[in-house]
Amino acid sequence: LNRIGICKICVIAHNRCKSKEKYIMSDTKKQKLWQSDNGDGLHPLVTEYIVGDEMDTDALLLPYDIVASKAHATMLGECNLITPRQATDLCEALDKILAEYKAGLWVLEKEDEDVHTAIELQLVKNCGDLGKTIHLGRSRNDQVLVAVRLLCKNRLTQTLHDLLETAQLLNSFAEKHTTVPMPGFTHMQYAMPSSVGQWAGAFVESLLCDHMTLSGIMKVIDCNPLGSAAGFGTHVPLDRESTTKALGFERVQINPIFCQNSRGKFEAEIVHGLLQVMMTLGRLANDMVIFCSQHYKFFSLATSLTTGSSIMPQKRNPDIFEVMRANVHVVQANVLLCQSVGMNLISGYNKDLKVTKKPVIESFNLVVSSLEIVRLAFSSLKVNEVVLEKCFEDTSLFAADAANDLVMKDGMTFRDAYRQVKNDLDQLSCADVSAVIKNRPHLGATGNLGLEKYQEYIEVQRK
Amino acid sequence: LNRIGICKICVIAHNRCKSKEKYIMSDTKKQKLWQSDNGDGLHPLVTEYIVGDEMDTDALLLPYDIVASKAHATMLGECNLITPRQATDLCEALDKILAEYKAGLWVLEKEDEDVHTAIELQLVKNCGDLGKTIHLGRSRNDQVLVAVRLLCKNRLTQTLHDLLETAQLLNSFAEKHTTVPMPGFTHMQYAMPSSVGQWAGAFVESLLCDHMTLSGIMKVIDCNPLGSAAGFGTHVPLDRESTTKALGFERVQINPIFCQNSRGKFEAEIVHGLLQVMMTLGRLANDMVIFCSQHYKFFSLATSLTTGSSIMPQKRNPDIFEVMRANVHVVQANVLLCQSVGMNLISGYNKDLKVTKKPVIESFNLVVSSLEIVRLAFSSLKVNEVVLEKCFEDTSLFAADAANDLVMKDGMTFRDAYRQVKNDLDQLSCADVSAVIKNRPHLGATGNLGLEKYQEYIEVQRK
Amino acid sequence: LNRIGICKICVIAHNRCKSKEKYIMSDTKKQKLWQSDNGDGLHPLVTEYIVGDEMDTDALLLPYDIVASKAHATMLGECNLITPRQATDLCEALDKILAEYKAGLWVLEKEDEDVHTAIELQLVKNCGDLGKTIHLGRSRNDQVLVAVRLLCKNRLTQTLHDLLETAQLLNSFAEKHTTVPMPGFTHMQYAMPSSVGQWAGAFVESLLCDHMTLSGIMKVIDCNPLGSAAGFGTHVPLDRESTTKALGFERVQINPIFCQNSRGKFEAEIVHGLLQVMMTLGRLANDMVIFCSQHYKFFSLATSLTTGSSIMPQKRNPDIFEVMRANVHVVQANVLLCQSVGMNLISGYNKDLKVTKKPVIESFNLVVSSLEIVRLAFSSLKVNEVVLEKCFEDTSLFAADAANDLVMKDGMTFRDAYRQVKNDLDQLSCADVSAVIKNRPHLGATGNLGLEKYQEYIEVQRK
Amino acid sequence: LNRIGICKICVIAHNRCKSKEKYIMSDTKKQKLWQSDNGDGLHPLVTEYIVGDEMDTDALLLPYDIVASKAHATMLGECNLITPRQATDLCEALDKILAEYKAGLWVLEKEDEDVHTAIELQLVKNCGDLGKTIHLGRSRNDQVLVAVRLLCKNRLTQTLHDLLETAQLLNSFAEKHTTVPMPGFTHMQYAMPSSVGQWAGAFVESLLCDHMTLSGIMKVIDCNPLGSAAGFGTHVPLDRESTTKALGFERVQINPIFCQNSRGKFEAEIVHGLLQVMMTLGRLANDMVIFCSQHYKFFSLATSLTTGSSIMPQKRNPDIFEVMRANVHVVQANVLLCQSVGMNLISGYNKDLKVTKKPVIESFNLVVSSLEIVRLAFSSLKVNEVVLEKCFEDTSLFAADAANDLVMKDGMTFRDAYRQVKNDLDQLSCADVSAVIKNRPHLGATGNLGLEKYQEYIEVQRK
Repeated sequence: LNRIGICKICVIAHNRCKSKEKYIMSDTKKQKLWQSDNGDGLHPLVTEYIVGDEMDTDALLLPYDIVASKAHATMLGECNLITPRQATDLCEALDKILAEYKAGLWVLEKEDEDVHTAIELQLVKNCGDLGKTIHLGRSRNDQVLVAVRLLCKNRLTQTLHDLLETAQLLNSFAEKHTTVPMPGFTHMQYAMPSSVGQWAGAFVESLLCDHMTLSGIMKVIDCNPLGSAAGFGTHVPLDRESTTKALGFERVQINPIFCQNSRGKFEAEIVHGLLQVMMTLGRLANDMVIFCSQHYKFFSLATSLTTGSSIMPQKRNPDIFEVMRANVHVVQANVLLCQSVGMNLISGYNKDLKVTKKPVIESFNLVVSSLEIVRLAFSSLKVNEVVLEKCFEDTSLFAADAANDLVMKDGMTFRDAYRQVKNDLDQLSCADVSAVIKNRPHLGATGNLGLEKYQEYIEVQRK
Repeated sequence: LNRIGICKICVIAHNRCKSKEKYIMSDTKKQKLWQSDNGDGLHPLVTEYIVGDEMDTDALLLPYDIVASKAHATMLGECNLITPRQATDLCEALDKILAEYKAGLWVLEKEDEDVHTAIELQLVKNCGDLGKTIHLGRSRNDQVLVAVRLLCKNRLTQTLHDLLETAQLLNSFAEKHTTVPMPGFTHMQYAMPSSVGQWAGAFVESLLCDHMTLSGIMKVIDCNPLGSAAGFGTHVPLDRESTTKALGFERVQINPIFCQNSRGKFEAEIVHGLLQVMMTLGRLANDMVIFCSQHYKFFSLATSLTTGSSIMPQKRNPDIFEVMRANVHVVQANVLLCQSVGMNLISGYNKDLKVTKKPVIESFNLVVSSLEIVRLAFSSLKVNEVVLEKCFEDTSLFAADAANDLVMKDGMTFRDAYRQVKNDLDQLSCADVSAVIKNRPHLGATGNLGLEKYQEYIEVQRK
Repeated sequence: LNRIGICKICVIAHNRCKSKEKYIMSDTKKQKLWQSDNGDGLHPLVTEYIVGDEMDTDALLLPYDIVASKAHATMLGECNLITPRQATDLCEALDKILAEYKAGLWVLEKEDEDVHTAIELQLVKNCGDLGKTIHLGRSRNDQVLVAVRLLCKNRLTQTLHDLLETAQLLNSFAEKHTTVPMPGFTHMQYAMPSSVGQWAGAFVESLLCDHMTLSGIMKVIDCNPLGSAAGFGTHVPLDRESTTKALGFERVQINPIFCQNSRGKFEAEIVHGLLQVMMTLGRLANDMVIFCSQHYKFFSLATSLTTGSSIMPQKRNPDIFEVMRANVHVVQANVLLCQSVGMNLISGYNKDLKVTKKPVIESFNLVVSSLEIVRLAFSSLKVNEVVLEKCFEDTSLFAADAANDLVMKDGMTFRDAYRQVKNDLDQLSCADVSAVIKNRPHLGATGNLGLEKYQEYIEVQRK
Repeated sequence: LNRIGICKICVIAHNRCKSKEKYIMSDTKKQKLWQSDNGDGLHPLVTEYIVGDEMDTDALLLPYDIVASKAHATMLGECNLITPRQATDLCEALDKILAEYKAGLWVLEKEDEDVHTAIELQLVKNCGDLGKTIHLGRSRNDQVLVAVRLLCKNRLTQTLHDLLETAQLLNSFAEKHTTVPMPGFTHMQYAMPSSVGQWAGAFVESLLCDHMTLSGIMKVIDCNPLGSAAGFGTHVPLDRESTTKALGFERVQINPIFCQNSRGKFEAEIVHGLLQVMMTLGRLANDMVIFCSQHYKFFSLATSLTTGSSIMPQKRNPDIFEVMRANVHVVQANVLLCQSVGMNLISGYNKDLKVTKKPVIESFNLVVSSLEIVRLAFSSLKVNEVVLEKCFEDTSLFAADAANDLVMKDGMTFRDAYRQVKNDLDQLSCADVSAVIKNRPHLGATGNLGLEKYQEYIEVQRK
């Protein structure tokens, strides 16, 4: 039990950690795409350092690289850079590689360097010379760009869908609780009358703004980098419009240097869009932690959504919303990483950008699962109306209303009315809360929440 | 010259700094909007702490608050909440306040707390009771929201315009240097043939993507928060569509709680959009620092754009581009601030958000001035063609071309061709660089840069 | 009231802003240190862009540069690089320049580029050739380094002092409220019995840890960069130990390239240390916002420390603590800026680093003023003991105690005791809260807070 | 090959990803520590969401929790809270659990929630009632705190060691190349004469400063949180000094609320210290990328440390240093995460902090592996002296020396000498570079690098 003792244990932990590696260096050294026969092998520490834990991420890119490789092969065929037969055979071989990967018949290894290399190696292993033809006029640089772009578009589509689902569910919740009173807070202090519907509606409108944001980002990134090769194009007469159409892109990302420079930059844009969603959910989560606590008790979570304590028998904790708050910061850190890594780098491909793959994927996962948790929680959320109404015994909530009434009924100027009420705060009386909530007529006020406008947006977007 | 000595000097510096304050606490204490007659004065350290150096920023919001106050007064008149005459008089009084402010006839003071208070105080001072009528149905909370929103829209419009100007100038530069060869770099090492036109085109396309990004953001934020009052609306029957139309907003920002929650959130979105521009300029600036240095000498800056050294007589330094790189980080820090400050706060107004005004304005200023510097630099940039061509004596730049030729002319598979070239790297010969640059036919390659597509986008957007 | 109208107003605001500039470009162009007689003038936009708003910051460096210049001149004299008389005269002239600056007899101008240039220009203006001798063996690069370093050391000393003052005041507060019960929260839910003394003690210990952190940082940065010249030293036989001793540094910062590379790096370290203080204060501030709100009412702030609302007559808001929370994020953004700006730059001086001066100074100011506000608030804070005791009517706070008692009194295993209490939560009874608080004997528990150990640390450090 | 096609593939990829999960939910539901017999089960999505991918991290904490649990059990025995025999038996049982875990005889499962729960469950499974006694007077809250603290101390010790190793190797490199000339750069432009030794020495001093920084941080965090229980202590008469001594901590972390509040805070401090190391390595790495490129060729990396390209046969890329630059940003993002996640949270335990475990561990791994790569690279780095000397044909490098000579030999004032040299830049002549490098006498200059002072520090620290 001394420091030395701990150190030994640490070493064990460290070794154990290594032995759990999924992507072990294979015994028989693989020849990389760029290695000559006489061997110009990499020091194993170098492979370890530059590949890191990226193989997990690369596994997710595999199907996208297959799709993009098929589009490239088809185009090579169309342009007579390979024969039509070769193009067809390559597409079939690529489909087979994907199928075999899904079936677990082959695995990615660290020695492969990346998924793109692994696929070409597999292609050559399965088809011999045919496999050696596919890389004409392309580079791994544009392979990774197009695969990541396709993944992002796909996940963005999923996220946009889930955003609408969640907004829909919250809008129904808001509608159901339109007239349930709730104090409005400024500076965390009682301010003016509000309602559960108004509170929930705030998150509906926020999510729909996030939907607009992500839709705008989708438009910006919907361009095809395939054909940029190593970042300068080639003298091979490729048809970039062909792959653009085949892969469903809106336009060609024309300039090959910009294709490279957009790595990190586009990721930062996407992840910042995702952070906007998380910022909405983080505010919601924080409100939930507060409003479910003993000092508020506005809402109660279903027991199956709360956790206990190892030492305190009484606890039921809103872990889901605390973790959601924390995940805002995880995504925020991912934004920073995507922004920063390309800064002060010379134009063109630089290996640095490889670290942006993981944060993008993690951010998508966190947004999608957080939206799911919100839907889960609000499906069974209990609103404690009695507690909420009791808050209005604090008549200071009606002070601004009283001042307004002095203006509208007695013709005072607002500032004089304000001062009069301020001087007689103890004379404020309780109002009929239900009437107060309903009798607020302007757009956005508790009597006119405008939820139907959100519904309209949702329905238009769903089409 | 001891530590004590320095300490004394420090105190002096500190005092001196204070005495240079522009917004000194006035001798005669002003009564704040919310203070009663019997005095419930603020401790002076509190005013100092919560106002900080914000009055500079608030000064910029003054004209926007005037415009918004006029729209609010006009609407109050339309809704018969004040008389039509009062509405007209208020608008005239507000115009006069602005005119007098511009003429230096009155100034903002720290004791005012903020520009919104200062305007109401001025209104009451100038017009008596009339001034006391304006605050019906609104709060400083929505005043600051709408003023900042109007400022952001205005500056975004300016930024979008300047982006197109800069893209246009760079596109002309690219066109002029379409056929000037330039080595393409990956990993900062020689990769493949490129051209000055291709390099410049990368930044044109990047700026146009940034234009798309900012246009998308404009769409998201183009909504009117005025009428949200303290963040929950009121029971005053306001017509929010009226002020929305008068102020040129696309739509009402409906939910008052969301109006408050969008502070920081929208700013983060805007500043992140501005960061996208700075990321483009930062890459450009870094390339300029590299390519103007002795080891490259690809470009030469005009002497009047470079600075010297206090100790080294020979120096001409590209400070403008180093400062531009640094400004990327300034805007990045501003993004972080806008993102972070609202996290983990309860819904509704919280004073914390006040710190987002400064970073937004600073970021706009930096983007606009950086774009101006880019235009200045490229108007007189000298391209050293001889130096650029000399780089191609390094024949390794043609290695990929050689491999492609073995495929296209000799029918080898690409991977075999690659290996053959790799084994005979010393046999690569110099090519006719000019022909190499022109004879790259696919979209985006040096022979087909697609600059006309950028021109088309610019012209469509200008309309 | 249309978009055009707003645009015009914006232009006015923009112009007005410019006209308020303190550091206007002078009419008669100044010759910079590095300019030759035949004129190689800077484009005015370049000066504007690279100086930016830095002159305010440079003004604060002026006394430090004077001190460092005197040490440099003295050393030149000692080394016979100038005559002893010249050294003495230079020191007197420098003192006079400082005195005249303080008296407002001369001012910094943007055309000076920086404070270091301004001082040399002033020296030459006042003393002719004598002034031209001072720059031997130094560069503005090391002048700015040493001036910033001296400023940081001075402000660190002040901060360390203020930290102890604040910890002392909070420790007295803790001692005074040792036995006042307060619920302990986990997950923002009731957890176990705590006390106001325990709560306050948490911040004392946190501040003392921050004191240790900043003391450690002081040790790292306490080294003299003067003599590093432009970043590579010179062949002038300087005596760096002499200036090191004169300026009160602990050691020479030996390597001139490292001197340059430490810009940004040291600033990041310092500002991160300051952020540690702000993180402590941010937690405190957030607790205060919560515990002063209607749903808690544990504490009440003095009226003179709270603000009102323009629309709601009843409000008394804890703005000081909301602004304090926000300032955590301001300092955090400053950390990011200082970290980032030097990343991916070639070793040696790069102009980029100039943007780190402002965030360092702003961060010191925010920490010092925030500590002052904390002392102000806790000097008059009212603790509402009745409210706090009433919380303990919720007997779930005693659940863990009950389980422990089953172990210690009845000999059950803890896990069985835990389950038994959990199954009978409704049978928990109210305890004598005062006894509960006092009867917690281990170090750190409410009956043994260990405040005397904090006192001991404070007293040792004060010596 | 349409969008739908991609979507399907995406789903497959997503599923595949899930099936590769290491910590699958077990079929037979485990009873958590806090669950009653009648079942108050968690929704499976909740477990999935709150555990996330944390089990990998928790596995690394296992040995530290075992050590801490043994110290806790021993102390319980010493205090007669359990029998001495029980204490001994618990320690043996804990050792056995660790041994069996290392032997793969049991595994962590997501259903365990965390490693601390898993160990208690295993203890009960193996030893029945004995296992149920261990949790008296502690909580998972302090278990995770102490385990993470022990891990951090251990990894810090390792990092401090590796820092010295790396500094030592670079110092030997610097010594070996003391007199090899190298141009010094400012603004990336030729500035003044420098040497390879001076360049390398900059990184030695930087690493030693980082060593000081991390040593200071070690001092701050070297305190024992065990005994803080859920964050408020207990009424169990624990002896916290006993566990503090047993676990090798310098002092008790006294205040239990501060123990909780220090989560995230201490992690931010540690990771920022690690970032300091990465900032040093990032500058080194960026220099290496530049200086190994065609336009510089100052250094050559061993072939086995460079990678190739899939399309360009000629490439040998310095991936290791590009990845190192990127890893600076990874650690920087980790700093942000650790800083942010606790901001604006109420004092005491909040689940949010759980996300700080991963970034701390990742940061330690990246620093240690990056230091290893630096040692690997510099063990075989080739310095191209001929290329370096050739740079000095650019005589502008001697301009400042010429001005100094006019002062020291001809008695001119420096500013006049500067201007004279500036006016006659074309008359600068080549100097004997070797003599120039050696004849720079002051501390830190190329003729007096002070490497022996670094050596001294290293040797003192190693003891």
